[in-house]
Amino acid sequence: MSDGFGLDHLPYGVFVTEGSAPRVGVRYHDRVVDVATVRPELDHPTLNTFMALGPDAWARTRAQITELVGSEVLPAFPLDAVSLLLPFGVGDYVDFYASLDHATNVGRIFRPDQEPLLPNWRHLPVGYHGRSGSVVVSGTPVVRPCGQRKAPTEDSPTYGPSRRLDIEAELGFVVGVGSELGSRIPVGELSRHVFGVVGLNDWSARDIQAWEYVPLGPFLGKSFATSVSAWVTPLAALADASTDLPAQEPAPLPYLSGGHALDIAVEVVLNGEVVSRPPYRTMYWSPGQMLAHLTVNGASTRTGDLFASGTISGPEPDTRGSFLELSWGGKEPFAGGHTFLEDGDEVTLRYSAPGTGGGRITLGEVTGRIEPARP
Amino acid sequence: MSDGFGLDHLPYGVFVTEGSAPRVGVRYHDRVVDVATVRPELDHPTLNTFMALGPDAWARTRAQITELVGSEVLPAFPLDAVSLLLPFGVGDYVDFYASLDHATNVGRIFRPDQEPLLPNWRHLPVGYHGRSGSVVVSGTPVVRPCGQRKAPTEDSPTYGPSRRLDIEAELGFVVGVGSELGSRIPVGELSRHVFGVVGLNDWSARDIQAWEYVPLGPFLGKSFATSVSAWVTPLAALADASTDLPAQEPAPLPYLSGGHALDIAVEVVLNGEVVSRPPYRTMYWSPGQMLAHLTVNGASTRTGDLFASGTISGPEPDTRGSFLELSWGGKEPFAGGHTFLEDGDEVTLRYSAPGTGGGRITLGEVTGRIEPARP
Repeated sequence: MSDGFGLDHLPYGVFVTEGSAPRVGVRYHDRVVDVATVRPELDHPTLNTFMALGPDAWARTRAQITELVGSEVLPAFPLDAVSLLLPFGVGDYVDFYASLDHATNVGRIFRPDQEPLLPNWRHLPVGYHGRSGSVVVSGTPVVRPCGQRKAPTEDSPTYGPSRRLDIEAELGFVVGVGSELGSRIPVGELSRHVFGVVGLNDWSARDIQAWEYVPLGPFLGKSFATSVSAWVTPLAALADASTDLPAQEPAPLPYLSGGHALDIAVEVVLNGEVVSRPPYRTMYWSPGQMLAHLTVNGASTRTGDLFASGTISGPEPDTRGSFLELSWGGKEPFAGGHTFLEDGDEVTLRYSAPGTGGGRITLGEVTGRIEPARP
Repeated sequence: MSDGFGLDHLPYGVFVTEGSAPRVGVRYHDRVVDVATVRPELDHPTLNTFMALGPDAWARTRAQITELVGSEVLPAFPLDAVSLLLPFGVGDYVDFYASLDHATNVGRIFRPDQEPLLPNWRHLPVGYHGRSGSVVVSGTPVVRPCGQRKAPTEDSPTYGPSRRLDIEAELGFVVGVGSELGSRIPVGELSRHVFGVVGLNDWSARDIQAWEYVPLGPFLGKSFATSVSAWVTPLAALADASTDLPAQEPAPLPYLSGGHALDIAVEVVLNGEVVSRPPYRTMYWSPGQMLAHLTVNGASTRTGDLFASGTISGPEPDTRGSFLELSWGGKEPFAGGHTFLEDGDEVTLRYSAPGTGGGRITLGEVTGRIEPARP
């Protein structure tokens, strides 16, 4: 069965069945394997206890599960018999802005007469802290946020539901092993700290964001919901997805030197139709560079910290990872007349990558449907 | 003994004595009272379990402690016999920018030829998410952060220790009772959600911040350390510190209408000398307005969430709450030649307010000493 969930994948999630306590499970094809029965560190309501054990424990457990999972000695449940929960307790959530094409598109849309890239962009992975408390698992409905919006033509702001609700197709990296305050994580030590990867949709209210974000950055335009996949793909399953980074010019400062890209294909699906295919391999800054930058000032990291790539956009119009770009600021409707999200719209992000067994693996998808604003 | 820690104050902290487990204690004059012996919800390593119980439980416990604390039936330890820990587990940390004088000063320093206040400032409490994982308790040394800095006269950034390390004298508000995703907290419901108040120093590396912050806001310039007081003053102890807000012009949108200021006096102490006296009562946006704005888009809140006021600056030069302002961008040395922080400098923020007993209470102080950058 080449569904992308074979022995070369085995992502982790947290599930409940009726009357049972939440615990870690592993997806194997269309079933959730109850691995907590053999590994006590997985008998927890989040992955955090297991993730904190570090790379050697991750490898041992993965080897044991690989042996057991096909042998049918472990209990397993059909996917539709379980509920999937947020798989990890989120520490700090940082969102980067690592796609050259996305940053360039945004610059062209908002500052058409200026150099699209800001002066710092090629020197450091620009990022900011998002709200960890509103990170939700795939499938959670997204209520249209209200807030202050002010069009350039208006004298003063008004209050009401966002009129420019958007997605951002991203990849998220989950920290397993943290680092002490005052220490730094070198670019090459990504795999000693990052446990795995999730799909991530950084829902964005562009009108709220546009009015609020100068000078301290996005706040309410982003903090109402960030969706992540229910399945965390261990970094080990992505070993064959590693590929060269695009050329970085100018060369980054030494503390940012090195790192690899990931050859992950993304699909943006709007109401059942694929509307874009962003290629993660085109991202300018690598995950190792993001983590090195995040800690270069001595900021500590913790088990459960989540950092995301920022919108994944490729160079072609049909590889853009946000509706802002796909509709070019709302001016060029796409996919049969869409600009921004309407109530009832459902967006699903799908991800796939080369697996270690010669085929492809399917990372956890991220889906969400827009509910009307609440009065 | 009028030390500000009498029966009208009774702030909560978390302490350990040699060989004992961390637990909640209450400060009464120069002693830490071991209240966990009578209230099981206080026998925890953070205040979170207790804070989650809500205002009725807070009031009952405060009444009981008020009765017991002076009667000497409870064990108590001299302050110098205990270690004080971070008193609460921090959820999300949001930092606002609520002082009109601070925002005006910053505008004048950085954009001398333009209108100092940005267009959105009087319409909403500008804020952003900070790093909750690097919130530390008073007394924790602050290692000078390294990072990228680029002066306007330089062609490209260099890497090294911050040369413009600063403080921000702030007040922090600790959420006890959270709110669901999709719901909002009205301005008037502050006291149903906020448990108490801490002193807060938002250490800032101005050179790192200046280079990184456009367009997504402060990141590494702030995330290396944020210090909070070891003592959390319950909102109940500040009942008589409530005072009228300064006039807000234009009138805020209805969801931001209302709220009260707090008459809290702040002192900034540099190496033992008082260098500034910021008055919290001059803050433009009230804590209730900040919390209402934070949740107006439906963002959820959790027990342990921390939101801070932003730098407290009054209208007079000797009431400014940052070295950036006290030295006017580093151009006007103050306090015997200081501009920004040198290695070995120690900064202590002190806070006091009218108590409910006719005298004054002394809120928990926040102190930190600068250690040299690590190679």
